[in-house]
Amino acid sequence: MLEHFFSPKTVAVVGASREEGKVGHDLLKNLVTYGYKGKLYPVNPHADNILGIKTYPSLREINDTIDLAVIVIPAQYVERAVDECIEKGIDSIIVISAGFKESGIDGALRERELLRKVKQHGIRMLGPNCLGLIDTQSCLNVSFAADMPPQGNIAFFSQSGALCTSILDWAMGECIGFSKFISIGNKTDIDEVDIIQALDNDAHTKVILGYLEGVKSGTAFMNAAQKTTQNKPIIIVKSGGTTAGAKAASSHTGTLAGSENAFDAACNQSGILRVKTIEELFDYAIGFSSQHLPKGPRIALITNAGGPGIIAADAVERSKLKMAALSKNTVDSLRSFLPATSNVYNPVDVLGDAKADRYRFVIEKVLKDPHVDVILVILTPQTMTEIEKTAEVIGEISNQTDKTIVTSFMGGIRIEKGIKTMCQRKVPNYPFPERAVSAIEAMYKYTLWQKKSTPSIKTFDVQKEITISIFDDARRTGRSSLSEEEARQVISAYGFKIPKSILTTSEAEAVRVAEAIGYPVVMKISSPNILHKSDFGGVIIGIKNAVDVRRCFSDITQKARRLMPEAEIKGILVQQMITGGKEVILGMSRDPQFGPLLMFGLGGIYVEVLKDVAFRIAPIDSHEAEEMVRKIRAFPLLQGVRGEVPVDIDAIVNNLLRLSQLATDCPEIMEMDINPLVVFPEGKGAMAIDARLTIS
Amino acid sequence: MLEHFFSPKTVAVVGASREEGKVGHDLLKNLVTYGYKGKLYPVNPHADNILGIKTYPSLREINDTIDLAVIVIPAQYVERAVDECIEKGIDSIIVISAGFKESGIDGALRERELLRKVKQHGIRMLGPNCLGLIDTQSCLNVSFAADMPPQGNIAFFSQSGALCTSILDWAMGECIGFSKFISIGNKTDIDEVDIIQALDNDAHTKVILGYLEGVKSGTAFMNAAQKTTQNKPIIIVKSGGTTAGAKAASSHTGTLAGSENAFDAACNQSGILRVKTIEELFDYAIGFSSQHLPKGPRIALITNAGGPGIIAADAVERSKLKMAALSKNTVDSLRSFLPATSNVYNPVDVLGDAKADRYRFVIEKVLKDPHVDVILVILTPQTMTEIEKTAEVIGEISNQTDKTIVTSFMGGIRIEKGIKTMCQRKVPNYPFPERAVSAIEAMYKYTLWQKKSTPSIKTFDVQKEITISIFDDARRTGRSSLSEEEARQVISAYGFKIPKSILTTSEAEAVRVAEAIGYPVVMKISSPNILHKSDFGGVIIGIKNAVDVRRCFSDITQKARRLMPEAEIKGILVQQMITGGKEVILGMSRDPQFGPLLMFGLGGIYVEVLKDVAFRIAPIDSHEAEEMVRKIRAFPLLQGVRGEVPVDIDAIVNNLLRLSQLATDCPEIMEMDINPLVVFPEGKGAMAIDARLTIS
Repeated sequence: MLEHFFSPKTVAVVGASREEGKVGHDLLKNLVTYGYKGKLYPVNPHADNILGIKTYPSLREINDTIDLAVIVIPAQYVERAVDECIEKGIDSIIVISAGFKESGIDGALRERELLRKVKQHGIRMLGPNCLGLIDTQSCLNVSFAADMPPQGNIAFFSQSGALCTSILDWAMGECIGFSKFISIGNKTDIDEVDIIQALDNDAHTKVILGYLEGVKSGTAFMNAAQKTTQNKPIIIVKSGGTTAGAKAASSHTGTLAGSENAFDAACNQSGILRVKTIEELFDYAIGFSSQHLPKGPRIALITNAGGPGIIAADAVERSKLKMAALSKNTVDSLRSFLPATSNVYNPVDVLGDAKADRYRFVIEKVLKDPHVDVILVILTPQTMTEIEKTAEVIGEISNQTDKTIVTSFMGGIRIEKGIKTMCQRKVPNYPFPERAVSAIEAMYKYTLWQKKSTPSIKTFDVQKEITISIFDDARRTGRSSLSEEEARQVISAYGFKIPKSILTTSEAEAVRVAEAIGYPVVMKISSPNILHKSDFGGVIIGIKNAVDVRRCFSDITQKARRLMPEAEIKGILVQQMITGGKEVILGMSRDPQFGPLLMFGLGGIYVEVLKDVAFRIAPIDSHEAEEMVRKIRAFPLLQGVRGEVPVDIDAIVNNLLRLSQLATDCPEIMEMDINPLVVFPEGKGAMAIDARLTIS
Repeated sequence: MLEHFFSPKTVAVVGASREEGKVGHDLLKNLVTYGYKGKLYPVNPHADNILGIKTYPSLREINDTIDLAVIVIPAQYVERAVDECIEKGIDSIIVISAGFKESGIDGALRERELLRKVKQHGIRMLGPNCLGLIDTQSCLNVSFAADMPPQGNIAFFSQSGALCTSILDWAMGECIGFSKFISIGNKTDIDEVDIIQALDNDAHTKVILGYLEGVKSGTAFMNAAQKTTQNKPIIIVKSGGTTAGAKAASSHTGTLAGSENAFDAACNQSGILRVKTIEELFDYAIGFSSQHLPKGPRIALITNAGGPGIIAADAVERSKLKMAALSKNTVDSLRSFLPATSNVYNPVDVLGDAKADRYRFVIEKVLKDPHVDVILVILTPQTMTEIEKTAEVIGEISNQTDKTIVTSFMGGIRIEKGIKTMCQRKVPNYPFPERAVSAIEAMYKYTLWQKKSTPSIKTFDVQKEITISIFDDARRTGRSSLSEEEARQVISAYGFKIPKSILTTSEAEAVRVAEAIGYPVVMKISSPNILHKSDFGGVIIGIKNAVDVRRCFSDITQKARRLMPEAEIKGILVQQMITGGKEVILGMSRDPQFGPLLMFGLGGIYVEVLKDVAFRIAPIDSHEAEEMVRKIRAFPLLQGVRGEVPVDIDAIVNNLLRLSQLATDCPEIMEMDINPLVVFPEGKGAMAIDARLTIS
């Protein structure tokens, strides 16, 4: 995929320039300098020869097939150049030039026209407004970056070109190798999804890193990532997260949702490791790049200094990793070998005077312990410390094991050479043990993800036709929010249990219905225009006899007429009153990128005040539904505290799956709350008391 | 303070050695090499001359006053050396030697004896088991560290010697200068409190950094820190945090408290910035060390790359800082100067081709904006970027302003020189903008702390004598938990309002009392042996008439006799039933280091399941009490949601202050819960329904 971008046999540089410092010059020079093996065709009507290479006045004049054309001319001429590419039958184009969407309306129009053209002719285009790309394997540096990174197995793509230059510069000083470096610019045609798919298929890439400010298609992004993360990790830093701002929303779910929660849920469900900072991005990357994945969470710390050992142990306890409990065998042999004042338990303290051989003995012993999955070796440069020799020992041992070994040599000048040595032997070093622990934790999480079974989406037998006719009806009458009865019918059609409930239009009818349902009953105003019924006294519960039914009927209707004179009142609902059980809320809000975002939380203040909710993108399977339920902080309340019986978690899961199906089946649903869903004790099911639903 | 440690006129090295690699040699060599200006007296019975310096067989033979003696001989001979110091009238000793508390019981005994001796003779001792200390101002390197750090205004003290060596090595490669470097070892005599006090008085120290694994006296630590942080920041990384482990506790407060919460509260109340990692420690340090404190939270970002600008803006939104809204003036002049595609709002994007002069113009303009307190300049090394020139510009501007300027030059090799340049001009650089934002946030928090008024502890008129007699009574009968009546009496003596409540011992008496109080009433078992009364049905509420009072009386007593046959039953409490209001919990648990740790939370599940609580160390003032109340996540529930009236926050504050006074007055109280305290609407006060209390 995208072969012509990464290993073209011929490259034309449209806008190649003789003038140093110009992008069209620097880019051509990079191609030459870093050893591109194919044929180069600079295009410039005012030059015969640039950097010693024959230069053509136009693409037309080149008597060869062009695999890749790179366009580095001012924005207003790009379209004409693309026309020439089409004429020449070129199927892969990089547009470096800026002056498109990012520069205002004229640019945006230019960009749209560009997209139309390339789409029409089946051309793939990278950019515009990008730095270009680098493929270290084919020695292809088709960018105006100032450097060529060393070869390695990390691929990096970025929506910010400037970030590419920073990271390239930084990588040059570190011991980090790259397979590919791709600036995706305005991602008009080729976007993160194309890149992820290409990198999935790239044998030279072991880890995929990305910097994103947004995604073009949420679903495609998730699908690509889900597939790729079965093979290799994807680590993403996404910015622009906190500025989302409030959006008008009529449901609780809508209020709490938002693009950040959607992106988080998408990462969670597609195995992407989302990090907060660039530092973490590379901390994780070097771990994945060079080490085996941990087979389990049990980590042993080996240190020549107590303090850093405690710091690391603290970090382990804050993480999902576990301090390994060394087996008796290991402890015994450590005790017989180490000085008396050493600590032979985890963290193993080899003491400040430990030389390389002591480190070797201990690492080898601990590595053999079946209770250990990962080793973190900590070293501080003390007077007796053999830094480089120890580094060599660790490198050698790491080479012979399939367990995970990382180090934290802490210091500066003295430890530099040691770190280089280990880097060459594929042992990643972290300047502080906390960062090492965090990287190992990420690797462990990824192990768990890979072990996870692929979601198997359950489909219920539902009466979709009912929902369709209700939506049609609402649309016909120009309403985007459904009435309560309509909402109840919709969820009932999808298998939610709801209390008996009948719309009445007179006191007498209300009494008849109440007596049929059985006291006590609940009475509620029914009006498509009134969403928050209880706020103005439109809901009365616990009505116990005919007299009260009559009184409540008139009370509610009068109050509604007085307070909301413009509201259309359809009558009064008389409902079976549900007692007992715990209230939860299930909801959905349609995210512009990722589609139906499901929400789960405990009812009332837990959602409104504590914002204790979990999100997933529909469709979900039962594992994911259960994860949602278990993820909220208040989950112990559902399990029962102080001797209460646990609620019917299976019923919640079942209802979440039905909601997932409803949200997936009906793209017209924009927001909905099922609030409360009353959940009864284990085995006794759940009942949806109230629902709100808005459609597009 | 500790003058003889930091600027001694004469230093004796007991255990000076001719043998390279030995601590007694390296330490003496450091004194010589790094230019100590005073007189050196090596002591070694087997040498006349070490490193060209006349050597003495014993301290006795030195015909001079010794300001500071450094002991570097095996542990078993240290005591004798100290005796010689006493004889010679030396008042300041550093014991480098290991082999004390850290090595087992014998060592601990040796250490205790050492302490006794130095205390008895008014000698101050640093160590044992330490690396020594460094004072760059007096060119004193009385340590066996391998380096001498550059001069600067950062002081670092550490409970881990190995961490000192790591940090020294690291600092040598960075541009970080130190005033003092102190390894406090086993801190047998001189501890963190002495060091903080000494550094407070040290004119060369602007920032105090510390690594701690624990504190010797919580109160002394807080007092010293409170005083010092008025003058200069203290930044602490404390490890050993998460391993605290469960301790047996009979109260909710006791269960939730723990040394980490106590240490956090102590830092919070004494202005200490506690950080989680060594990286943060130094990120903060370089900010404080070189820049002005921000006068406010408004930060402007200036960047030559969009992506990193967004990353930084995200970090700002997650922090307590605010994105500055640039004034119209600033925006206008930026617009007229910058290229059309620049962003002239915050973050200001000067574009990838910005040279030093463009940076200069923008920084100067933004700096003048009265809406800006802090500037973060971000630079990525692009082709046109004038890295060093821009660095010089920033350094020059920073020199002329009293606003805060920090940078994030992102990259590696290319930006190295620029960073050095800025460092020399006291502009701290952070490799990633998130770390810059976090450091500025810390500086801003410190500014707020310095502005805070000193706590003024209010004292209520209370009946302390009542509590004393109750405690005496409990002790006399060998009880550590008070009965409910006793606990009620104690808090009532401290001004808590409690419901009317009378102990009854017969059904008839119970009825009489209930009728006097007025129905409905609550009936509760009264037994010093039953703490969780409601768990077994020992509490019945809402009793409405005499018949029910009689029935409940016998129900409760029978149940208690059956289920807890060994419990002493004093009778049944008949209580006024309180309705309405919101339940909160106030509690106290005595921390072994910091004393009375107060807790506040919402009642029930908020405390037990969600652990949504706030801690402070008593005594507290009304500001701190209010902070506690506002700090919990569920605080909006107290303010009232959905049109509810707010509860009486002042009453909670008042009760917290009373609890603070009780906890401070009565050191015998180990744990207590006031649970629930029912808080009524604003202006209507609060009532303590139940209390539990255990004493030592």
